Amino acid sequence: MHGYTTDKDDYLKRLRRIEGQVRGIARMVDEDVYCIDVLTQIAAVTKALQAVSIGLVEDHLGHCVVDAARRDPDEGQAKVKEAADAIARLVRS
Amino acid sequence: MHGYTTDKDDYLKRLRRIEGQVRGIARMVDEDVYCIDVLTQIAAVTKALQAVSIGLVEDHLGHCVVDAARRDPDEGQAKVKEAADAIARLVRS
Amino acid sequence: MHGYTTDKDDYLKRLRRIEGQVRGIARMVDEDVYCIDVLTQIAAVTKALQAVSIGLVEDHLGHCVVDAARRDPDEGQAKVKEAADAIARLVRS
Amino acid sequence: MHGYTTDKDDYLKRLRRIEGQVRGIARMVDEDVYCIDVLTQIAAVTKALQAVSIGLVEDHLGHCVVDAARRDPDEGQAKVKEAADAIARLVRS
Repeated sequence: MHGYTTDKDDYLKRLRRIEGQVRGIARMVDEDVYCIDVLTQIAAVTKALQAVSIGLVEDHLGHCVVDAARRDPDEGQAKVKEAADAIARLVRS
Repeated sequence: MHGYTTDKDDYLKRLRRIEGQVRGIARMVDEDVYCIDVLTQIAAVTKALQAVSIGLVEDHLGHCVVDAARRDPDEGQAKVKEAADAIARLVRS
Repeated sequence: MHGYTTDKDDYLKRLRRIEGQVRGIARMVDEDVYCIDVLTQIAAVTKALQAVSIGLVEDHLGHCVVDAARRDPDEGQAKVKEAADAIARLVRS
Repeated sequence: MHGYTTDKDDYLKRLRRIEGQVRGIARMVDEDVYCIDVLTQIAAVTKALQAVSIGLVEDHLGHCVVDAARRDPDEGQAKVKEAADAIARLVRS
């Protein structure tokens, strides 16, 4: 049971849509669509993936991190550090 | 015939792999994998998409933009502007 | 008294260094340094600013957010939402 | 004489403003301003730096790269590769 479990169906729906968008980009490349239009579509998929990430971060902070901090301060700090590292990977990606 | 046409098979292979990775992320969510691990995987996919974008930009500059500039200075400047706008969308995504 | 207060001197030192780097970039432009070298330097400053942001986010989560969550669940959720919005701005910038 | 030389004064003005914004962020930290407000300001500076980068890339493509490509195809390809590497650093920063 994780932070995102309550919104699981919504996340699954968004990820299926993103999967379809990536398949669409492959089709664009296969049909020699103009480079700039392919790039625009990739930027849209990247944004959609980032939106999923930000939602997961919010759910994670609001459940796993906050629950750990309420149970035990040290466990809370460990979860905060772990979340900050994940956010750093997100910001740099 | 566009900039990326010579590397088409390579781009298609990378996009199929990315499609599979997105499907894998949906599976992770479906199986309640720990949020942080899902986030790490999304960051990997985002990086892979960015690498495809950067490759497409390079091919586009090296073919479409440079060819246009050789044919006609005004056409070259229009292609440069269009490419810069696409790069801006990439940087911001 | 905020999350970053204990590391204040370190943050101030890093921000002064970034300020000096920006001044250095202006000097490079003024002296007509090659565009690519200016771009490399701007990328370095952007990375340094992001590192400051990530540090601030970690301190904020570990203090303000966690403390609010311990005091009151609703206040905790409000702080989580606010932090997630700030992280979203960071990821998109 | 580089791509950005004609807009030099504009770039210098923007960089001076960014330098002032970074100094303002240090002041915010020094005065213990709320973490989230500091983060918002850092995101604004990062965006301003990215806008400068994108402008420099456009000027660079429109002058250095296009001129090299007109002089000599091999030199043009070398400039395209160099520009693509700089764009990659930008996208990843």
